[in-house]
Amino acid sequence: MKPRSLSILLPSSLAIDASDLRSKTAKIGQIARAASVFRADKIVIYRDPDLDETELIERILNYAETPQYLRKHLFPLAGDLRYAGTIPPLRTPHHPLDAENIKIGDIRVGVVVRVHENGSWVDIGSKRSAFLNVSMQKGERVNVQVTSNKPLKAVPVDDDEITGYWGYSVARAGTLSGALAPTQAQTPGLRIATSRYGESIDADLLRNIGAEAGSEDVLVVFGAPHKGISEIMDEEKREEREKSFIAEFDYTLNTLPDQGTETIRLEEAIVATLAILNLAFH
Amino acid sequence: MKPRSLSILLPSSLAIDASDLRSKTAKIGQIARAASVFRADKIVIYRDPDLDETELIERILNYAETPQYLRKHLFPLAGDLRYAGTIPPLRTPHHPLDAENIKIGDIRVGVVVRVHENGSWVDIGSKRSAFLNVSMQKGERVNVQVTSNKPLKAVPVDDDEITGYWGYSVARAGTLSGALAPTQAQTPGLRIATSRYGESIDADLLRNIGAEAGSEDVLVVFGAPHKGISEIMDEEKREEREKSFIAEFDYTLNTLPDQGTETIRLEEAIVATLAILNLAFH
Repeated sequence: MKPRSLSILLPSSLAIDASDLRSKTAKIGQIARAASVFRADKIVIYRDPDLDETELIERILNYAETPQYLRKHLFPLAGDLRYAGTIPPLRTPHHPLDAENIKIGDIRVGVVVRVHENGSWVDIGSKRSAFLNVSMQKGERVNVQVTSNKPLKAVPVDDDEITGYWGYSVARAGTLSGALAPTQAQTPGLRIATSRYGESIDADLLRNIGAEAGSEDVLVVFGAPHKGISEIMDEEKREEREKSFIAEFDYTLNTLPDQGTETIRLEEAIVATLAILNLAFH
Repeated sequence: MKPRSLSILLPSSLAIDASDLRSKTAKIGQIARAASVFRADKIVIYRDPDLDETELIERILNYAETPQYLRKHLFPLAGDLRYAGTIPPLRTPHHPLDAENIKIGDIRVGVVVRVHENGSWVDIGSKRSAFLNVSMQKGERVNVQVTSNKPLKAVPVDDDEITGYWGYSVARAGTLSGALAPTQAQTPGLRIATSRYGESIDADLLRNIGAEAGSEDVLVVFGAPHKGISEIMDEEKREEREKSFIAEFDYTLNTLPDQGTETIRLEEAIVATLAILNLAFH
């Protein structure tokens, strides 16, 4: 059974081992790819006081997730994004290879480029804008379905009408404990920590996780290159702000038992862990 | 149970989707990392007539596998290797972080830097060379154990005395069929093909593969970015040289069921596949 949603939680220091913007971009780009290959719904960046690059990470992840034809509206290709062109394309269903080729019924991500008294003009990848019969703000992003080709017209679509992977959203959290705390809006679901000191995963454990995940929300938490999750949680606990809540995990997993290298890079850990959990959820 | 050996077979066109040397180097570097994380013993590059970059791939893989302190003897940092410095360190047991710190009993990779009538002088990472009481050729690579610190002396060690992952070797094959053919020296062992059209792997299949691998040699074959294994085998068959042998695989696996992206990059497929098989072999 598939979980209702898959979120991955990553520290703001995830690129602490990359020395320059080019290699930070490459690393974050690999994470964007991994999240997409395994259909993550959400990437949450939690703050590690050692290095807070939340903004950079968020910007690059959002850039990678945005269909190529919309990037010009949403991102200036300068400053932090100057190496973003080197990120490999995600090749998800919402990133059409030939954006100009539009058929009736196609679902597209659009951005409002001009507002009109009866609706909005939306860029959906064609030289012509599509007319949407809904009033929106300029610059807003919206999922639409094409209803007419000449003239180009579209209507908004709800998320549940979209089949196929439609990208991830990016959120930020002040602390890891905060990101894991149950809210009124949402039950915590299945919370999985990754750690080299965790339980080595095997076929039996995989089956249990799959059964327990059921159709819940699944969170998978990764530590930083220079310190693990338990260390991060301990530090947060010592800081003792309003932390009455100390997260407990349903599983703490070592997904790389008997590793040949002293260290595992975060982008390797993400692919390895999500590949294994993908089997549990399949 | 652990297999006796793990080999991964990759096409000579593996970097066909990388446009320049820098990105080819990054891709091959990621493959070197993945092979090491999952303790691959051997990487075999089989020839794909579409693009034969065997030499480049072999050189970069060998560079990455060589301890930092020996690279100056074995590789000119120019030409094909000009971006090799950007490859992240493997951090395997045979790549000590502080090479200068040598203790009696340490096992090191060495290279013969000077020959002597009674033996050889070997660079094992210290400013001083170690004396080895065996005659060897200048430039030869040898695994040694330190027996004395002042003066620095060492003796050769056999592979089976080395515990811990000690890197991979790189070999080349004229064809994939050839690389898979049984030889008199070696039974074929367990042969696993990866394909998006293969059987989706799950916990049961994982258990079967583990049982069947036993302590055999395991080969895991990957296709090229632009064509799969069956297409490559079909082309070889059509070329009809001395191909009386057509390889059959014990398993053809889809290790990335329900992928969110249209394409999977080879470096992603390698990490995902070896992470999953690692559980079977654990």
